[in-house]
Amino acid sequence: MYQRILEICKRRGITYPSFEIYGGLSGFYDYGPVGSRIKQNIENLIRNSYVIDEGCMEVECPVLSPQDVWIASGHVENFTDKLTECVKCGEPYRADHLVEETVGEGCDHMSISELNENIKELDIKCPKCGGKLDRVYDYNLMFKTYVGPGKYKVSSYLRPETAQSTYISFKRLWDVGRKRLPLGAIQIGHSFRNEISPRKGMVRLREFNQAEVQFFVDPEVKETPRFGEVSSWEVELRDRVDREYKATLEDLLDDGVIKIQLIAYFLGKSLNLFRSMGIDPKLLRLRQHKDDERAFYSTDTWDIEYMSPSLGRIELVGVSDRTDYDLTQHMKLSGENMQVTRDGRKFTPHVIEVAYGIDRPFYCVIESCFREAEDRTFFSLPPDIAPYKVAVFPLVRKDNIPEKARDVYSLLGGERIMAFYDRSGSIGKRYARADEIGIPYCITVDYDTLEDDTVTIRYRDSKKQERILIGDIISHI
Amino acid sequence: MYQRILEICKRRGITYPSFEIYGGLSGFYDYGPVGSRIKQNIENLIRNSYVIDEGCMEVECPVLSPQDVWIASGHVENFTDKLTECVKCGEPYRADHLVEETVGEGCDHMSISELNENIKELDIKCPKCGGKLDRVYDYNLMFKTYVGPGKYKVSSYLRPETAQSTYISFKRLWDVGRKRLPLGAIQIGHSFRNEISPRKGMVRLREFNQAEVQFFVDPEVKETPRFGEVSSWEVELRDRVDREYKATLEDLLDDGVIKIQLIAYFLGKSLNLFRSMGIDPKLLRLRQHKDDERAFYSTDTWDIEYMSPSLGRIELVGVSDRTDYDLTQHMKLSGENMQVTRDGRKFTPHVIEVAYGIDRPFYCVIESCFREAEDRTFFSLPPDIAPYKVAVFPLVRKDNIPEKARDVYSLLGGERIMAFYDRSGSIGKRYARADEIGIPYCITVDYDTLEDDTVTIRYRDSKKQERILIGDIISHI
Repeated sequence: MYQRILEICKRRGITYPSFEIYGGLSGFYDYGPVGSRIKQNIENLIRNSYVIDEGCMEVECPVLSPQDVWIASGHVENFTDKLTECVKCGEPYRADHLVEETVGEGCDHMSISELNENIKELDIKCPKCGGKLDRVYDYNLMFKTYVGPGKYKVSSYLRPETAQSTYISFKRLWDVGRKRLPLGAIQIGHSFRNEISPRKGMVRLREFNQAEVQFFVDPEVKETPRFGEVSSWEVELRDRVDREYKATLEDLLDDGVIKIQLIAYFLGKSLNLFRSMGIDPKLLRLRQHKDDERAFYSTDTWDIEYMSPSLGRIELVGVSDRTDYDLTQHMKLSGENMQVTRDGRKFTPHVIEVAYGIDRPFYCVIESCFREAEDRTFFSLPPDIAPYKVAVFPLVRKDNIPEKARDVYSLLGGERIMAFYDRSGSIGKRYARADEIGIPYCITVDYDTLEDDTVTIRYRDSKKQERILIGDIISHI
Repeated sequence: MYQRILEICKRRGITYPSFEIYGGLSGFYDYGPVGSRIKQNIENLIRNSYVIDEGCMEVECPVLSPQDVWIASGHVENFTDKLTECVKCGEPYRADHLVEETVGEGCDHMSISELNENIKELDIKCPKCGGKLDRVYDYNLMFKTYVGPGKYKVSSYLRPETAQSTYISFKRLWDVGRKRLPLGAIQIGHSFRNEISPRKGMVRLREFNQAEVQFFVDPEVKETPRFGEVSSWEVELRDRVDREYKATLEDLLDDGVIKIQLIAYFLGKSLNLFRSMGIDPKLLRLRQHKDDERAFYSTDTWDIEYMSPSLGRIELVGVSDRTDYDLTQHMKLSGENMQVTRDGRKFTPHVIEVAYGIDRPFYCVIESCFREAEDRTFFSLPPDIAPYKVAVFPLVRKDNIPEKARDVYSLLGGERIMAFYDRSGSIGKRYARADEIGIPYCITVDYDTLEDDTVTIRYRDSKKQERILIGDIISHI
């Protein structure tokens, strides 16, 4: 299935590997004409859901940031993989993966010296050529560059997450939001990780898209009056001691499995968002980070994962209590005070983070909506996610029919409805094309249209067709 | 005026310098909660105008690209400034600017040896400390980094323009667009230039936003049936031999001043776009590139400039005939054939490029819409550009009035209308706040609302107020 989806994605301009004519570079993907529309619809769904429904502020900060930011955040020191290279053929490997292959799971928290020891004692060689492996070293996953010339040169990095740039402007947001908590801020944009050997297509990219929400709260009020909207939902989960079961969000909270109400709320809200994107809810699971996996400062961290039939577990969002760690770090390094006063108490706000990937949900939407029938393949994308809401076909290319079809297209354009005009090939071929990019409605303009202003509307999922007035198209879709 | 605008931009969360708590880094700006909304509205205006109205495809490609792309495009060799540094204090200078200060204009095309000679003969010293200046060298303006570990390390650059990534995927777009010309493609995103000493705030950034349209055409058909929509417009211009005058686009084309109809069309279309963003059309000028300024392969290049009362000439868009230069270069280096066949002729498509900045129009919109009256300052932003369409105020914070106001806010949210809820301060203060972020309509919910479902609507520009039914808000705005 994966290969068939990739083939359609390339052929239909959904997504394809970047720099193809130069042999490609793994970890980079282009969004084509169809994919860019779907991606923007996914982004807008998340954006509106936080900006309009939760009253979040949106910010856009540079992707390139000076070193200080990443020293404070800990990324310069800790955002690393443990790397080793074969002294003979030069092949690089993640040392923990190599050791894991020999001793089994649980090596991802080994120190460099533990890894070196293991490689020596277990006599692990280069899997490719059998050569000796060099000493393990810390390989930083941030892309480094320099800003400015000569003596003004500043070491800088491409951001590995959007979060930090939101944190460092907290005081601006605090003033704009008129000094009130909770204060929600969302940032949607590119982030970068110099992965050692990215695989799995769009699921592990070196340049990727994120939508990260930072919810600044009073440490004593990690709650929301809206929890009732999701509290009774039953979810499937794997908790931090690997138990798998089903329970309602309310019970999980009452039993102390989920430790913070806001986390439970955002998990429920995210499940809902993924469902409305068209991701199959039966394939979604909550997963709590284990104690040794969670960042040391976090009190609780959860992911929502999609169980992909083709690629296995895919993490779609992480919801985490980051406490006051990040703001405190930036206060220390910058000397800027970011504490606030409330009801006579002075404190540093805590942050509940909701960190969405965009490329991964994108892939999961595509995979979840992929349908193969005996006579056709199509993507059953929800109308809000589909690249175009409507396709418009002139039956023939003569007798004023194209002009009439153009009128219908312009009518939709005037309403800012994304329509797709397609004049070539048989109507059957045009339906097939529309199906393969997930257009929910096809409108055909024919000779009768010239007489009575009716058109044929055809529904993607059912293939049902009916005759409606041009004036009724908007209300039908 | 410039300082007052900047002050409001910071205070109201429109834009502010990035990394402020770390002392800032020149050439980087954040879009705050209000600015990000305005920026997206500007982008969407351009996007819809090309995707919906011109049938362009939109693509999104990585900002990080391997070296080959930039060798082919000529950026590795030619995208440079000539730099010299003081041997004593280390201050870096653009050598052509230093020579220009002594000999007057026209040094921007001097070679390194000409510049060295001039510095020596004119005895130019470091303006800061009087020290000797070091030999001039080529300083590449691209940010460089490396992708991948060890032996797989690939020299890569942050793109200085979006155009090249669109060109290299031409064959994919050609297939998706079913092998038809003209083929229009737009890409909206970040680009980067490591400027030596960026000044002028948002007008010269190191990380900036672009919307670049590549119109692939048959070299024999650089025309459009839509030219009639703009042909009779009178424009102010400065041509390539520095004559300044007014003329219609049609006359300029007939007289051979503008050499290509598609260029004339896109210039007219762009003027219209800038006007609908709220930029004062009286301050817009066309400027033709001089013969020695134009890229050697281009047959004609034009800019639209905004004559800023505070910052001088600001280039907002460049419209250029890039011929088959870029595709040919990529064919040579990659070995990939990008020729097409049409009516029995085999050729490489030509490209008419329309390259919009986003940050510069953003600043010009803000400046053009800035109004100072005796009692207030406001931004007269067009409703489609304003960060929020409507502000909703509860008159008081009791007696069910906030609940009623929330209902109005939710009603607008349900229609996906960006509204701004503001409950604190006197109504006068709230009007002032809404004015300073350019909200066109304010709705106040008061005691009468509870009785008869009417609200007060207040218009930003006229300050006029009237009483309308809640049910009529949508049709009023």
